[in-house]
Amino acid sequence: MRLVVAAVNERNITMPDLYPASRLADAAAAAGRAGLDALLLTPGPDLRYVVGYDAHALERLTCLAIPASGEPFLVVPRLEVPAAQASPAGQIGIDLIGWDETEDPYAIVAGRLGAPAAVGLADRMWALMVLRFQAALPGARQELASRALGPLRARKSPAEVEALAEAARAIDRVHAQVPGWLRPGRTERQLAADITDAILAEGHSRVDFAIVASGPNAASPHHTAADRVLRDGDTVVVDIGGTMPSGYCSDCTRTYAVGTPPAEFLAYYQVLKDAQEAACAAVRPGVRAESVDAAAREPITAAGFGAYFVHRTGHGIGLETHEDPYIVAGNAEPLMPGHAFSIEPGIYPGPHGARIEDIVVCTDSGAQRLNTATRELVSVPA
Amino acid sequence: MRLVVAAVNERNITMPDLYPASRLADAAAAAGRAGLDALLLTPGPDLRYVVGYDAHALERLTCLAIPASGEPFLVVPRLEVPAAQASPAGQIGIDLIGWDETEDPYAIVAGRLGAPAAVGLADRMWALMVLRFQAALPGARQELASRALGPLRARKSPAEVEALAEAARAIDRVHAQVPGWLRPGRTERQLAADITDAILAEGHSRVDFAIVASGPNAASPHHTAADRVLRDGDTVVVDIGGTMPSGYCSDCTRTYAVGTPPAEFLAYYQVLKDAQEAACAAVRPGVRAESVDAAAREPITAAGFGAYFVHRTGHGIGLETHEDPYIVAGNAEPLMPGHAFSIEPGIYPGPHGARIEDIVVCTDSGAQRLNTATRELVSVPA
Repeated sequence: MRLVVAAVNERNITMPDLYPASRLADAAAAAGRAGLDALLLTPGPDLRYVVGYDAHALERLTCLAIPASGEPFLVVPRLEVPAAQASPAGQIGIDLIGWDETEDPYAIVAGRLGAPAAVGLADRMWALMVLRFQAALPGARQELASRALGPLRARKSPAEVEALAEAARAIDRVHAQVPGWLRPGRTERQLAADITDAILAEGHSRVDFAIVASGPNAASPHHTAADRVLRDGDTVVVDIGGTMPSGYCSDCTRTYAVGTPPAEFLAYYQVLKDAQEAACAAVRPGVRAESVDAAAREPITAAGFGAYFVHRTGHGIGLETHEDPYIVAGNAEPLMPGHAFSIEPGIYPGPHGARIEDIVVCTDSGAQRLNTATRELVSVPA
Repeated sequence: MRLVVAAVNERNITMPDLYPASRLADAAAAAGRAGLDALLLTPGPDLRYVVGYDAHALERLTCLAIPASGEPFLVVPRLEVPAAQASPAGQIGIDLIGWDETEDPYAIVAGRLGAPAAVGLADRMWALMVLRFQAALPGARQELASRALGPLRARKSPAEVEALAEAARAIDRVHAQVPGWLRPGRTERQLAADITDAILAEGHSRVDFAIVASGPNAASPHHTAADRVLRDGDTVVVDIGGTMPSGYCSDCTRTYAVGTPPAEFLAYYQVLKDAQEAACAAVRPGVRAESVDAAAREPITAAGFGAYFVHRTGHGIGLETHEDPYIVAGNAEPLMPGHAFSIEPGIYPGPHGARIEDIVVCTDSGAQRLNTATRELVSVPA
């Protein structure tokens, strides 16, 4: 089970649960509300969200066009027609148009759309395609499809929450094995290789990242595993995630210690744990995203570590590891039931650092944590 | 050795060989020749090509700005500064600007660039960023960076050819193992899982695709491995590739048989092998890309199978699996020494099909094949 042989795990969630046929009509209605005459979705999370088609990102155009009113259609390279037909998109009776190597697929889309005044482009559409659509639809103002799809994608359905919970359980099982691989004399890279194998073995179809940041490297929150050798007294930030066959992502950080960490580390680790707890406790419908960021920041600042919490508190997660809603100063968006996001404060004073991250879902009764690995500092013998 | 622990294989090629510091000046000069005042390169193959920085594709802006005249600069999220510094980009003394979570990185780029009349955007830049740059640089016409970088990237340096050859040797070693995994009763998906493991074990850092198309599925050139069970008499198209730690890609197709394939298959397999040979023989500097396509198509058409060769003959390969030059009708571009591309004619009459693909490099004396696995039909006992 790797990249190319992915299939939704049938034990828990079925494809129609995750990608219901009603999405297409929901997307068209959202486009209309956002003042867009059509959405143009190329391969990526927007396309997958609407019709469940996990299409290859190729230089050849694949595009789902969704008029705010009118029939949607899917333009695909002739070679990809069977794959599109085999995907959930093929089951919902959408008009499928194959194009040949010497045809201009942009002209095909433009010809069918008529003269839209505004189109919403998939946020990850390649510039290559953005500029071709600009030329093919010269009268259309280009906006982002997220204006329409962002609010839909941010509020997870029960099936999506279950898909995220399944991803969280898988990455929690990886974290449970980390202490067994952590010992002095091994390198960050060796630990990352063990983790990478386990991310796949525990059910992900793709490894998205495996950050292993030991000792001073922990002061770089996005440090990639390197050749540094683990030593007695090290603390190690392990921030790992992957994508499940369902399409949904995991992301969880724990900080570990080898032997006895410095006393000042233990002091701020407790502050961090309290801050992460406070931010989780602040989550409820109607609370602004930035208030959750502030709730994490307050105890850290009060303890004198504010300058060492150098990033936002969290990011939404779903078919992308980073998506709306962002838990960051300046985002006044109110949280709503179904919003799923990370809560991951960090303190990096150097020559060590720490971060604790869980994925949570906003429910009517507050935050539901999807990751359940202990947040106590796990120390392995030196 | 997986996704996140990639490093250039030091045995054969060094980082400075592959990503020489001179690229930055070459890119600036190419921008000027293409009538662009600056290139704006976000994470992806264009950025990696110019400065060797294999940056994460994130919603947070990372952008290398290369004015046609003036000093280049690299804008990165504060979190990514250490990773950027540790990359080859950090070794060439480029001006590195970290931005904080609450800053507007587009305004930072625009402020430093002044008022360019035309900018070249990385071909894979996300629409999200294209539209933000449109707003931040309202006076700048947006073009594609490939106008400047395409010709540079298409002609591989000796180090790049060696990186592609290393990738080809790795995928050839995988093909050498395929007959051992191929037997009646196994599914396409099981075979693809073995292949996927082997792609990683043989030195790739990422699996890009593992197409296993047996029996009637072979008639779909981009078929993904499915649950079909292999049977006596089946033919199986195996088209596989990955990305090496160097950043360079492999891509090789062979067609196998289980037991004795139908007589009509054997007849057109020979035609296909001749066609692939003829296309390779047609490669030399100055020949048009479309002439190589025609050279592959002629013997297939003459044998009455023209209607079943439904795709172009090939695509360039390098830091992307598909890039310039495309070997397709209508591409009158002359081949030049250092051009690297696939030659992969196929015949798919149904209920079976075949394809043979090698990566070749154009040299002064013709095509140098990088893949050397036998092109004779390999049949395993039923």
